[in-house]
Amino acid sequence: MLYIIGLGLADEKDISVKGLEIVKRSSRVYLEAYTAVLLVEQNILEAYYGRSIIIADREMVESHSDDILADADKEDVAFLVVGDPFSATTHTDLALRCRQHNPPIPTRTLPNASILTAVGATGLSLYAFGHTVSMVFFTDDWKPSSFYDRLVENTSLGLHTLVLLDIKVKEPNLKAMARGRIVYEPPRFMTVAQCASQMLETEEERKKGVCVGDRLAVGVARLGSDGEKIVAGTLQELSEVDLGPPLHSLVLCGTKMHELEWEYVRGFAVDPEAFDTIWKRDYAGKT
Amino acid sequence: MLYIIGLGLADEKDISVKGLEIVKRSSRVYLEAYTAVLLVEQNILEAYYGRSIIIADREMVESHSDDILADADKEDVAFLVVGDPFSATTHTDLALRCRQHNPPIPTRTLPNASILTAVGATGLSLYAFGHTVSMVFFTDDWKPSSFYDRLVENTSLGLHTLVLLDIKVKEPNLKAMARGRIVYEPPRFMTVAQCASQMLETEEERKKGVCVGDRLAVGVARLGSDGEKIVAGTLQELSEVDLGPPLHSLVLCGTKMHELEWEYVRGFAVDPEAFDTIWKRDYAGKT
Repeated sequence: MLYIIGLGLADEKDISVKGLEIVKRSSRVYLEAYTAVLLVEQNILEAYYGRSIIIADREMVESHSDDILADADKEDVAFLVVGDPFSATTHTDLALRCRQHNPPIPTRTLPNASILTAVGATGLSLYAFGHTVSMVFFTDDWKPSSFYDRLVENTSLGLHTLVLLDIKVKEPNLKAMARGRIVYEPPRFMTVAQCASQMLETEEERKKGVCVGDRLAVGVARLGSDGEKIVAGTLQELSEVDLGPPLHSLVLCGTKMHELEWEYVRGFAVDPEAFDTIWKRDYAGKT
Repeated sequence: MLYIIGLGLADEKDISVKGLEIVKRSSRVYLEAYTAVLLVEQNILEAYYGRSIIIADREMVESHSDDILADADKEDVAFLVVGDPFSATTHTDLALRCRQHNPPIPTRTLPNASILTAVGATGLSLYAFGHTVSMVFFTDDWKPSSFYDRLVENTSLGLHTLVLLDIKVKEPNLKAMARGRIVYEPPRFMTVAQCASQMLETEEERKKGVCVGDRLAVGVARLGSDGEKIVAGTLQELSEVDLGPPLHSLVLCGTKMHELEWEYVRGFAVDPEAFDTIWKRDYAGKT
């Protein structure tokens, strides 16, 4: 059996009791380590789980999945995923390969917390979110703005939008690569401030008014951990905020933000008075 | 400290290791038991957690929250919620009351699996879901169709829609009430078949084509448990399917359903050939 086990968001103790039992009895334990990262190091996980962990990078999962699936028709293999297993399509691929394997490998998925729902800690109703979008690091000559089209759609329906922020782990250094050497860049994690800045920058290009400086938004960092931090404000304010270490995400508030949501979110405002003024002007009563 | 702890979806072992530690050391342990239910009985939870549990019904949470919060500024109180804590707004209310309490009561939330993400087990991409909707039990003279408007919106964007199905627990019997006695009805849980039938019925009224008999949908039951069941088919097919015991949910597929999603979902089809024919005719290549 291949067990695809969600680890939750923060640390080694966010795994479910059931998941931990499976990890302890599996023949091999893999950790998917490229679509998301936990807030603790591998050795802490290994010590707590009492198992050594094989790090599964993108290449292993996409090109060498046979190694992961070896003998999984006869014994238990655990494949650990930060957050919830199905929040990334890669794991659907893996489950599909199990189904097509000869003989087929039975799979079982253990769901866990995901940023897609943990974002409810902001006080914004999960039922009022539209399509989730991703924000990648802009470069001088690559500033993809397809996220903006989704924001236009959600905004037209008055819905909130969760923006997931880029992470770069195990990226090869291009200069070294040109010299035939493989050197990896240090990991990079997009901050709420960088995301808000890129949204403001895109607004200047696209000009449909969905990412202007006084749109209300909420930045979150390290959700589900002891050091969880939530800050609400205008996009302009969030472009200057420091939420500390990763992981960060951002929510652009929909105009249908309900009074009960507002009452909760304003408790996180950088400047509660300004927040209330904008809410009353642009959001109140739009439900 | 008030700990609001997600229990996950299926049984007593879906709580996180961290959550279990908190339950064991808290002064009192409440279980919210009206927006969702676990698939195991209270006595199994109590035996496993080694604690007696106070059932918090809607009246207790909405009208007697002071009892729940008593002394929570000085000691630890655990408030358990099936699924993820913030998937129901009631828990935002409770957290808000802690903030407004004198002295303020610190709160901490432990996220867990939610149907909102566990539905990824269908193979449908969580990033391609629009607004979530709820379906209530229709009666002879009450057939609310506001869900239909959300389906029209999501469908126009090509997005999937998760439909959450009504549960009725601790509903008073109206005849007994008229005679001055309080008798509770047995709990009722909407099935996928009932939901699909109500969607077809609403289509006949509203006629915008979003719930016609050959729209593709996926029914899920007991997600995250050993007895998890997933069935894909047309709304017509699903209106006749039996997915067994609760809890059930339904997903109406968006027209932008990607080829990779289709490849996975078709493995659950009642009639794979019919499923493929409709997919190719109405869905393929719409991304």
